[in-house]
Formats: sequence, structure tokens, C-alpha cells
Amino acid sequence: MEELKQRILKEGRVLPGDILKVDSFLNHQIDTALMNRIGQRFHELFGNDKITRILTIEASGIAAAYATAQQFDNCPLVFAKKGTAANMSADVYHATAYSYTRSGEMEIYVSHQYLSPADRILIIDDFLANGQALSALSEIVRQAGAHLVGCGVVVEKAYQPGGEMLRRQGIRVESLAKIAAMDPENGIRFE
Amino acid sequence: MEELKQRILKEGRVLPGDILKVDSFLNHQIDTALMNRIGQRFHELFGNDKITRILTIEASGIAAAYATAQQFDNCPLVFAKKGTAANMSADVYHATAYSYTRSGEMEIYVSHQYLSPADRILIIDDFLANGQALSALSEIVRQAGAHLVGCGVVVEKAYQPGGEMLRRQGIRVESLAKIAAMDPENGIRFE
Repeated sequence: MEELKQRILKEGRVLPGDILKVDSFLNHQIDTALMNRIGQRFHELFGNDKITRILTIEASGIAAAYATAQQFDNCPLVFAKKGTAANMSADVYHATAYSYTRSGEMEIYVSHQYLSPADRILIIDDFLANGQALSALSEIVRQAGAHLVGCGVVVEKAYQPGGEMLRRQGIRVESLAKIAAMDPENGIRFE
Repeated sequence: MEELKQRILKEGRVLPGDILKVDSFLNHQIDTALMNRIGQRFHELFGNDKITRILTIEASGIAAAYATAQQFDNCPLVFAKKGTAANMSADVYHATAYSYTRSGEMEIYVSHQYLSPADRILIIDDFLANGQALSALSEIVRQAGAHLVGCGVVVEKAYQPGGEMLRRQGIRVESLAKIAAMDPENGIRFE
């Protein structure tokens, strides 16, 4: 998505530690006009796949998922919550994801009532790097017996292993901006 | 907002411990069509107030704030992040809120670059009970030197002290559903 790539080049900052800051429009401040066009793009890619629910994870996936759900006739949007095993009730699907940002494991969960075997699920997230969050979400879809149609990702760090790992499992992953390489000196190069 | 109240009566569950579960449409699964009408209602209330930015707090405020920002000509939406003092950089406004849900203090923060003295801010959140989150957000607006136009709240527990505390400070608070009383046996009564 050319508009998104140009925006990343213009406002993104590459920091030491493989960090891409795009918080002026994607995950701290949000440009809802751009995000709505991101939702339209996901609808172009998955619009014929009879999606019944959009699934994402709090907090930074919610805006892109909201924009996308609007394009799918306002189909229900579910966001997985982060929690600890201690505060989780019995009626949830749950999975574990290792967070590289937080250097620790996190549990994510979704109530049984909001996913069913009849569902055709599109997972949406803002970033894909190591694939931990998307793997955990796809595990939750599996537990629910629902059909995972695919994953829509706003920014993929294609030099990290997550995208390949998911695609090798047969999961369809569509990323709107794929970063081939980046570092603080040379900036960002897209695939 | 009659549609919202009817939906709360139909799908809301009152649990022991003063908990209102509305996670089938508001804060776990989201009905984006309803949420867009919530955004339209906030625009009816604040549309003449020259709002330049919408401010909310992750995670469950994001959907309502997104719906509202769209109605305000896609003005920028900023969500405050939750963190610990340890992972906070120097260039942020921050405030402390006591979370009754988590029984502990939480720090929330917003980068300096996304709020300015020229801003006229509308704060949006899904719930108002003790007012801790809205107080912390208004403190961040104060630190930025911006003008706080008011707060738009989806559900207010009017029998809790938060709404009165904020209104006594001269803050305009508009709530779309005000709960006068609720308990597991008698259900929900609106003001």
C-alpha cells in the first residue's frame, strides 16, 4: 500500500534495538482517515472470503481492526485481552505469547461466547515480527473450532521469522507494508 | 441515548462486586455500527466546540474514541498508554490513576509531541465510575497546557462519585447512559 509506505518513510523513526516508531499515526496517535483506507485495503484482499468476525489483540490492534470491521458490513470485532492465569475465568479460550517488547510471556484470552465453530475469522494486527501474537490468536481460533481465513497485518518486519513461520503453517498472511531491512543509519527499505 | 440503554438492558449482566458486563458489544466484542452511532451522538454534543484532538486511554476506550474521531473530520486520536515509571521516557506527560479493577496504581502517559497548548481536547472513555482514569487524562491535558473542552462517556455509574467530582471541578461531562442503581437481583435502573 503505497500511501502507507510513504507515510512510514516520512514519519517513522528507526531506533536502536530494531524498533520502528510509527506512533504519530499508527499506535499512539491514530490517523483515522489513513486507518479507514487500511481497512478498505483489507476488504479488497479478503472481501470475498465470507468473513463473519474480525479478531485482534488489545491495545494497538484495535484501531486497524475497527477500521476493517466497518468495511465488512460492521461485522463483530473481538479483541483478545491480556491477562494473567489468575484473573482468567473458566469460560475462555487462552494462549501464551512471548512478548519481545516486554521480555516475558503474556497470556491472552477470548470468552467462549464470542467465537464459534461457525465463524470464519480474519485476524488483524498492526505489527508482525516474531509472530508470537498472531500465533497465539490463531491458536485461540483453533480452540474455538472456527475457520481461520487469514491474517491482515499493517506493517511486517519481513526480515524477522514470524511471517515465514505462519505462511509455512499454511496461514494466509497479507501485509500492507513489508520491511526488508532497517537500521538507524540507513533508514527503511521495503520489499 | 435510548438505543444504548436498551442494549445495556438486553445484554448487560450485573455481577456481584458492582460489575456491569457489557462485553458483547462495548469492550470485548464491539458492535461497530452501534459504536459509530455513539460517535455521532458525541458529535451532536460537542460538534460546535472546535475540537482539535480526541484523547482516550488504552485499551477499552479506543473503539469509542475511534468512532468519535471519524465524526470530527477524522481529527487526530491519541490514546494514553499504561506503563510503569521504569519504561517511561523523559518526553511524556504522565499521571497516576488508582485502578479499582486491578486494585493498584497505574501510570498513564502521552508523548509530548501529540498534545500542544493550541489543542482543544475532547476526552472519550467507555466507563465512568470513580473517575480515576478521566482525572488522570485531564491532568495530562493540564500538563500540556491544552484546553479541555469536556469528557464524553458511554456508560456512567452515576451512583459512584466520579461524575460529581469531575463536574464540581467545572469539567463538562456528557454520559450517554447514566445508571442510577444496579444489583444482580433487581437489575439496572437508569437516571
